[in-house]
Amino acid sequence: MSNTPPADIKFRTQSQLGEVFAALDSGTGREVRRMLSTLSPQSIAQLLESSPPRIRQVLWKLIDKEVEGEVLQELTDDVQSQILATMDTEEMVAVMEGLDADDVADILQQLPDRVMAEVLSAMSETDRQRVESVLAYDEETAGGLMDTDTISVRPNLTLDVVLRYLRRHEQLPESTDSLFVVNRKGQYIGLLPLSKLLTTDPSVTVREVVNTDVEPIPADMSDTEVARLFEKYDWITAPVVDSNNRLLGRITIDDVVDVIREGADHSLMSLAGLDEEEDTFAPVRRTARRRALWLGINLLTALLASWVISLFQDTLDKVVALAILMPIVASMGGVAGSQTLTVVIRGMALGQIGRSNLNWLLSRELGSAVLNALLWSLVMGLIAGLWFGDQRIALIIVAAMVINLVTAALAGAILPVALRAMRIDPALAGGVALTTVTDVVGFMSFLGLATWYFG
Amino acid sequence: MSNTPPADIKFRTQSQLGEVFAALDSGTGREVRRMLSTLSPQSIAQLLESSPPRIRQVLWKLIDKEVEGEVLQELTDDVQSQILATMDTEEMVAVMEGLDADDVADILQQLPDRVMAEVLSAMSETDRQRVESVLAYDEETAGGLMDTDTISVRPNLTLDVVLRYLRRHEQLPESTDSLFVVNRKGQYIGLLPLSKLLTTDPSVTVREVVNTDVEPIPADMSDTEVARLFEKYDWITAPVVDSNNRLLGRITIDDVVDVIREGADHSLMSLAGLDEEEDTFAPVRRTARRRALWLGINLLTALLASWVISLFQDTLDKVVALAILMPIVASMGGVAGSQTLTVVIRGMALGQIGRSNLNWLLSRELGSAVLNALLWSLVMGLIAGLWFGDQRIALIIVAAMVINLVTAALAGAILPVALRAMRIDPALAGGVALTTVTDVVGFMSFLGLATWYFG
Repeated sequence: MSNTPPADIKFRTQSQLGEVFAALDSGTGREVRRMLSTLSPQSIAQLLESSPPRIRQVLWKLIDKEVEGEVLQELTDDVQSQILATMDTEEMVAVMEGLDADDVADILQQLPDRVMAEVLSAMSETDRQRVESVLAYDEETAGGLMDTDTISVRPNLTLDVVLRYLRRHEQLPESTDSLFVVNRKGQYIGLLPLSKLLTTDPSVTVREVVNTDVEPIPADMSDTEVARLFEKYDWITAPVVDSNNRLLGRITIDDVVDVIREGADHSLMSLAGLDEEEDTFAPVRRTARRRALWLGINLLTALLASWVISLFQDTLDKVVALAILMPIVASMGGVAGSQTLTVVIRGMALGQIGRSNLNWLLSRELGSAVLNALLWSLVMGLIAGLWFGDQRIALIIVAAMVINLVTAALAGAILPVALRAMRIDPALAGGVALTTVTDVVGFMSFLGLATWYFG
Repeated sequence: MSNTPPADIKFRTQSQLGEVFAALDSGTGREVRRMLSTLSPQSIAQLLESSPPRIRQVLWKLIDKEVEGEVLQELTDDVQSQILATMDTEEMVAVMEGLDADDVADILQQLPDRVMAEVLSAMSETDRQRVESVLAYDEETAGGLMDTDTISVRPNLTLDVVLRYLRRHEQLPESTDSLFVVNRKGQYIGLLPLSKLLTTDPSVTVREVVNTDVEPIPADMSDTEVARLFEKYDWITAPVVDSNNRLLGRITIDDVVDVIREGADHSLMSLAGLDEEEDTFAPVRRTARRRALWLGINLLTALLASWVISLFQDTLDKVVALAILMPIVASMGGVAGSQTLTVVIRGMALGQIGRSNLNWLLSRELGSAVLNALLWSLVMGLIAGLWFGDQRIALIIVAAMVINLVTAALAGAILPVALRAMRIDPALAGGVALTTVTDVVGFMSFLGLATWYFG
């Protein structure tokens, strides 16, 4: 059911959303139901994702029963679990009928263990077995991504036999671009691309044309590693095997695209202390609760910076210009550091940065920091000198900015690598750690130099 | 040539990079050449992306001539243009031979106009025409993404004839999962999936099985829109047509994955004032130059904040505790605002946010901000009261934090939408604009209330 008719290809969520909201407002559920029935499951899912919680619940009730499962599997984890929370076991089993095993497994993992067990035991024997074979693997591995719906052939058959075998199928599994060649024990030998099948003399055997170059993916490979391989080699499907090289299933590009999207979103969202699966339209209380911890952590680091300032309160009392200028030193350090941090975090996510090139990167960042520190500290020194008519303040801010911008570059490059070595997510912790460093060093260097200078 | 043998599937760039660097150090170019010859073009490209500039130039010279083109097309724009800068016209033409028209067009667009014209005129007539048909479209549209290498069939043929026609091909174009059905004028009618071709009785005609549900993509659709459609409908290939519905070519998922990756990276990199195409290993001077402007803009906003502080210097002179606490008010506003900003920017990138749900989002953000503002301002008020033994300071910081956190939520939600309406990239300008607001409002509210209170 992929390649679903996008009768609504030029459809824009936003205008559609406006119409649906208007129809809901005027209270005509029937009209909304009609509008929804003209949309593909993917468009309905996008509509749900773009709706505030109450409207989302109303819309869900107006969807055709037959497409509910397909809509559900398109939703992000957070929204899925909100909708599942309103269903009983029977409804869940009905909704998941006809979905691929990997999609059912994804959905089930949003449920509490007890409910998951209930749903599984209410499924048909074959369905349960297929889903359980996927559930046996961690969600974030190749096994958790794979679908068990494959077509495999033996190497001794002629292509003619394969062609006749295929013709007995009503249709092939979604996104099938290759058949899998396996031996008698079900062990993976290689691929037989459909395009090869169509362009080769039917009298030759599978063995003569099998493509053995593509190594299969072990079921325990991490999903980000899988995504990197797909991205690198432009795969559409790839075989997944167990530790005995037995074919377990296949991974298709549509599931990998989700992994790529989530991985890229992860860096962005984590830098603000957010989760990439977060529902854009989560209700007030959930939103407030999820963000509270992050704000609390940042309050602690801000208090640390304030404590550093308090060490120099006698100097601040004497020269009020210092209080006026000190945020500039801290802020410029923060901005410079976050540029380095972002480049390094992205480079690490792309697998580019490691021991062999870290030193080069560090010295490049240092070099770049020195050049920009000299440029902008001199500009700032000139401004400060003119503003307060005091050369000493100008000299102090120049020195403090150079110190803080160079520290910022070092911290921005070293922190993510060090955090990763400590198995802490650099995207999540890097930003806070960096700001702490640039604030503390910024205030310390500026006020410290001033205390020493002004006595 | 896709699905290239990943003899190195378990290959890790980092360990490989270490070995290559070691071999380069010991001066044995032949050893490095041998190592490179065992790698796929994709792995060599990743090695080049992960190398500092000088090593990158040395490695490039050691690559087999035959794979140079494939390696080049895998590189990011920034790295491509560095390598092209070392070649003459003849070398460029040789390198690009055998690549897909869309990949050649991508590479050519890295060159100055004069050089591009030279390379084009040195190409064979057919190659030039195919590349020029892609170059006619903006790089960031469906036309710029498409490949002209398609197989199309007429509706009146029987599948048997189609099968015999395919069998005359040595191989089908990469990632072919469907043939395109066109009329006599070359106008697009629908798709004939290979899997359909393999599972249907060969005596029926194309007309009877053609899938007319998939609307073709207009050549001038933006690449992000194309990516959204692929992501939504799990497409592998899609047809591209001109304004008369004539089939121009097809877009394949591998090029779309790059668009998705770049789009997601764009938000992350732009928030730090960086370009998503930026070479992680750009040399010092280029890095410093690219970042200088961003630091300059931030210096201006920091100066604005300092000017706000200077308005209250008499009060600061009287109560030094204010100087110690004021960064906390500004910093908490910045953190709270950046959480809202990130959620809204991501939601906009996913096409979820528009006029119909903006109000809901705004009130959700306000609600969440009020809750967290009350929590953390009271905590902070308590700390300030205990620290300075002064209830007035405690009251002032509570009020200022509530004002700034609520302002931050409003600014974080409204700024990106307003910037987009002004056709300014919200990911690029949003962060700076937000910090300016939270700094100015933070200092203004805290010091303003203090001035009014302490008189």
